[in-house]
Amino acid sequence: MLKDIEAVLFDIDGTIFQGDRLIEGAKETIDALQAKGINIAYVSNRGNVSQQEGCNKLRLHGIKADPASLILSSTVTAFFIKKHYPQAAVWILGNKGLGEEMPRHGVLLAKKPEEADFVVITLHDEITYSELNDAFKATSMGARLIATNADKTYPNEDGAAIDVAGFIGAIEAATGRKTELVIGKPSCFMAEAALSYLQTSPASCLIVGDSLESDIGLGRMQGMKTALVLTGNASKGEAESLPARRRPDFILSSIAELRRYV
Amino acid sequence: MLKDIEAVLFDIDGTIFQGDRLIEGAKETIDALQAKGINIAYVSNRGNVSQQEGCNKLRLHGIKADPASLILSSTVTAFFIKKHYPQAAVWILGNKGLGEEMPRHGVLLAKKPEEADFVVITLHDEITYSELNDAFKATSMGARLIATNADKTYPNEDGAAIDVAGFIGAIEAATGRKTELVIGKPSCFMAEAALSYLQTSPASCLIVGDSLESDIGLGRMQGMKTALVLTGNASKGEAESLPARRRPDFILSSIAELRRYV
Repeated sequence: MLKDIEAVLFDIDGTIFQGDRLIEGAKETIDALQAKGINIAYVSNRGNVSQQEGCNKLRLHGIKADPASLILSSTVTAFFIKKHYPQAAVWILGNKGLGEEMPRHGVLLAKKPEEADFVVITLHDEITYSELNDAFKATSMGARLIATNADKTYPNEDGAAIDVAGFIGAIEAATGRKTELVIGKPSCFMAEAALSYLQTSPASCLIVGDSLESDIGLGRMQGMKTALVLTGNASKGEAESLPARRRPDFILSSIAELRRYV
Repeated sequence: MLKDIEAVLFDIDGTIFQGDRLIEGAKETIDALQAKGINIAYVSNRGNVSQQEGCNKLRLHGIKADPASLILSSTVTAFFIKKHYPQAAVWILGNKGLGEEMPRHGVLLAKKPEEADFVVITLHDEITYSELNDAFKATSMGARLIATNADKTYPNEDGAAIDVAGFIGAIEAATGRKTELVIGKPSCFMAEAALSYLQTSPASCLIVGDSLESDIGLGRMQGMKTALVLTGNASKGEAESLPARRRPDFILSSIAELRRYV
């Protein structure tokens, strides 16, 4: 599985963690890969946290990581805006992690909703009506819509909880405007940011994740090797029922199983 | 108005044409700019025509143009897919112009809906139920959605006619999936394609168009000079009621008025 592989891209939720719990063997697998000199990056559709927050969570569980190795949809949204709209002022609808990530990567934040060129939408699990309404105001006064990702739900303690798609839906329905860009996996934006961080070619890269669409989809489309773990939202049966070109190259019961190949 | 200007970007519908009718003075203005050595490109959100079709329409009215000078949302969608997803197979929902544009720029067309990695949606004014259903099939079997543009209506002989947003809505509603990318103006994708064709900097570029959001929005966001013409969908009052940073630099009754400045 690791033949000719110089770098491994790990999804985070459902691959390394289930909620706040580290999946058994995750640390040992990552340690072993690092000891072998394999470069590691983490690619996650989480748009409501910053690289620093994501990194802190890994370190809390003993995983050696650098903030720059976290390729989050918040980070990549900031990269995109900074590169393509360097003058733009942005209004955030989301948890504070996204609001931290933007200026860290050189993106200007608008001071008032009416001064925004873009509204960037992500998950906001502490949202107030006034924050929702500010995003509505910015959008109805002409700001364009970008979403870090468009996941419908994510698993929390109670089961499926409403995710970014719900916030996008609220703003689109109330303003009649449309999101013009969704940054998250499986997009080329996420893949290119990860490859640029790793300084490697897709063919020498293995992506490991629990989502057939986000992780395996990203990897297949870019020509990476792909491994599905069964600790998240896809089953072996689902993976095997896909047409050959969408199937993962490998199926692992969990990240722990990868260690055997190191 | 033309001080330090090396290139002019013209919107097409509402700026050069009203329906099939050439706006008075359009040819003379373009001829005069070309005689002065100013580079010209055309940027249009029309995603259902090819560069060749668009060029033929200009030439029919005596305007000297090269197909490559037409920066259409169909063309730029093809550029984007070819660059970022070179292996992808695409299914088209739209008039045949888009289907011609894709392979011309090196994009692979899927042979069957179930083999598509992306469905690209544009206006299809001769659509059949079976074509709509094929796009539905492709999307519900996992193809991702890209739209050339997301205009809600366009003016035809009867008034406002349903445009791309209607087709996007149909596919999104029936599949529960979301469009991840809208290529058309005022996006950076259109602006960057135009600037790359013109080989010029935004500051030496004037954009002339009838839409405050698409044309003036694109120009302002990129640091181009901007001129609104009143032969399309915006009035002088609307333009003047915008905050200063969204207002056009110049307001012209029509493209003919530009000739005075040449």
